[in-house]
Amino acid sequence: MINIGILGFGVVGSGVAEVIAMNLEKLEKHLEQPIRVKRILDVRDFDDSPFSDLLTKDADVFFNDTDISVVVETIGGVGIAYEFTSRALSQGKSVVTSNKELVATHGVELLQLAKDNHCAYFFEAAVGGGIPIIRPLHRCLAANRITKIAGIVNGTTNYILTQMELSDMDFSDALSRAQLKGYAESNPAADIEGIDAQRKIAILSSIAMNGIYINPDQIHTEGIKNVGVEDMTYARALGAKIKLLAIYKSYKEGSCEVIVAPHLVDRSEPISVADGVFNAIAVDGNALGPSMFYGKGAGKLATASAVVADVLDAALHQSKNAHIMSWTYPEHTVIKPFEDMHVIALVRLKGTVDLNLYRRLFPNQQIKPVVSAVPQETAFVVGQEGTLTEKMLSEATSQIKEFISLIRIYS
Amino acid sequence: MINIGILGFGVVGSGVAEVIAMNLEKLEKHLEQPIRVKRILDVRDFDDSPFSDLLTKDADVFFNDTDISVVVETIGGVGIAYEFTSRALSQGKSVVTSNKELVATHGVELLQLAKDNHCAYFFEAAVGGGIPIIRPLHRCLAANRITKIAGIVNGTTNYILTQMELSDMDFSDALSRAQLKGYAESNPAADIEGIDAQRKIAILSSIAMNGIYINPDQIHTEGIKNVGVEDMTYARALGAKIKLLAIYKSYKEGSCEVIVAPHLVDRSEPISVADGVFNAIAVDGNALGPSMFYGKGAGKLATASAVVADVLDAALHQSKNAHIMSWTYPEHTVIKPFEDMHVIALVRLKGTVDLNLYRRLFPNQQIKPVVSAVPQETAFVVGQEGTLTEKMLSEATSQIKEFISLIRIYS
Repeated sequence: MINIGILGFGVVGSGVAEVIAMNLEKLEKHLEQPIRVKRILDVRDFDDSPFSDLLTKDADVFFNDTDISVVVETIGGVGIAYEFTSRALSQGKSVVTSNKELVATHGVELLQLAKDNHCAYFFEAAVGGGIPIIRPLHRCLAANRITKIAGIVNGTTNYILTQMELSDMDFSDALSRAQLKGYAESNPAADIEGIDAQRKIAILSSIAMNGIYINPDQIHTEGIKNVGVEDMTYARALGAKIKLLAIYKSYKEGSCEVIVAPHLVDRSEPISVADGVFNAIAVDGNALGPSMFYGKGAGKLATASAVVADVLDAALHQSKNAHIMSWTYPEHTVIKPFEDMHVIALVRLKGTVDLNLYRRLFPNQQIKPVVSAVPQETAFVVGQEGTLTEKMLSEATSQIKEFISLIRIYS
Repeated sequence: MINIGILGFGVVGSGVAEVIAMNLEKLEKHLEQPIRVKRILDVRDFDDSPFSDLLTKDADVFFNDTDISVVVETIGGVGIAYEFTSRALSQGKSVVTSNKELVATHGVELLQLAKDNHCAYFFEAAVGGGIPIIRPLHRCLAANRITKIAGIVNGTTNYILTQMELSDMDFSDALSRAQLKGYAESNPAADIEGIDAQRKIAILSSIAMNGIYINPDQIHTEGIKNVGVEDMTYARALGAKIKLLAIYKSYKEGSCEVIVAPHLVDRSEPISVADGVFNAIAVDGNALGPSMFYGKGAGKLATASAVVADVLDAALHQSKNAHIMSWTYPEHTVIKPFEDMHVIALVRLKGTVDLNLYRRLFPNQQIKPVVSAVPQETAFVVGQEGTLTEKMLSEATSQIKEFISLIRIYS
């Protein structure tokens, strides 16, 4: 009998209980033994939940239950979730989570604690919701050096951008619609400012770097607030979509480039199929070549599906000294400074401007005029061949008095 | 030290040796111990291979080497490959393979043999080449009932269809080009007749059925020989592409529909992004919802990447009684008979025909006229709502004297 304890009975936590009930027969066949949710810890009341008799508000009751061998942490945040996760792992109980903030912040310590206590710390659901990506990256692509990851990893911003594209809405109207539909929180800052995507690409980057921890705070991050209706007009004209991308590129041995920012993504790119709340993550390996994973990046049952898969894996590898990831802090900075990163961008200028006047600002660069998609504007693409740095680009545009804005181009 | 033996030093077998050499440092970090290819068994000579000193032609030398704990079988076919796989598993050595024919034919026995001998039989590379699909389906989606799989799983036919679509070639010209490029074999029958796809969907279906073995011979299979330039014209007119799809649908508890046939796939479907030799596999789970996996379905290093990932997994779970799949033969037929399967199809008729004349042949069906994409033809779509069976469709079309052909529509 596998006994599970759930910490936090919110959307994902209750989804975990539901998925286990819904697919119990299949799970027990997979495990070759019975499985049940034994206890749920939450400070709130859930009187009409079918699982209300499993609820306790007393953490000691939860942690002193020696039947529980796998703990699901779906509290979120880094406060009490960190404390409870540490407590469970210290007891030798495997912990499974969807908490990207905790993994991105304290992954090194928690993975070490799991190792020390011969149990597992799994977090498939922390990136891409229900899409298998952590295990495919760590296990299925283990024979590859990961050279690139480019992900649409935040459903809220992707929903907003898709609405802007399809309905010609501006950002704030699209945000309101997302809130109305329940796809954006009343305080949507972590999503629209790119913080959620930043945490997720930090996790994926740490795996791609073979366990060298990438600190999310060091990742240059831009949200989608400044994406306007005019940008969508250019996107359409160029056969592209605008997506908030979280990108990892291996740079040279032991270092990498990581960025979160809106990008023009050509419609021929496989990841461009992800519209609305869907996520897509492209991964390039030096043996595999390009690959892509697509699916629901959020939602109760989709996310719970990934959590429960981790529960099964943890249950099957109990006391077998399961091989789990191991992360370490880097000895020196491994992320290339933002200003040294290479960039290709679409630059928009006010009025009808002779681009020849600005060629001297971009030495050794091709400036490719783009037919303006907006009246009274001039636009061009600069940065072919990966020779233009962010620093060069921002210095040049700061000297152009007609400069409106720029948007990066994914390549 | 993990010692590997390779059976068959063809494209994939030599790719395995190459990938191990190329990414050795990463592999050893992942394993936390050294790994090497100890021996390679092949009857051919490979004098200029950097691995020639590892080659032996003597099977006894190979199998008596007690250092070898993981065997890679990249011989192909069901003859000697079956014999050698059985021999290795009986010795308690884990076997990893890309051999879809062997898995689809003898998977039940070989998985049982692995279980009996406390070792593993892994075949991630047998479907989707380098794309992680077997492990994601079996492990990452373990908490789901798999309701649908729809895959473009054969790179050769997808290359041919893409050429026909982009260059307006007919089938035989596109096949010649595929052979010239090395994407089709000189005897391309297994690919173009859909046999390769049939084996692959049989494997995926057996996993989706929780280990109830699906016999490839029971899967209705049509190849791509009859797809013509005119069909491509209709596809374009309908905003679709023609893809050879291998489809599994769970039908009711314990039974399923499985088919391999060319289908019209709407360009809004995520799998439609797979052009040329790329593969894409859509998977729907009852908790996850829709998902999709995309990448190189063939090729030396891509396929080897999946094989080596399996080698690592086998190495990490040695003598730990690793949890591996278990398949059993069904007690009764679980595949729905072809004639009872539901279908939506585009039907092409010679000349300008009054469709009202044929409505009585399709009782209770909507007949949706399609603007003919070819001069002197009439076309319509029939089969909305999943109420039309293959039997009803073939009986009806056999009574239409102007009938040219039909092509199924993926939905």
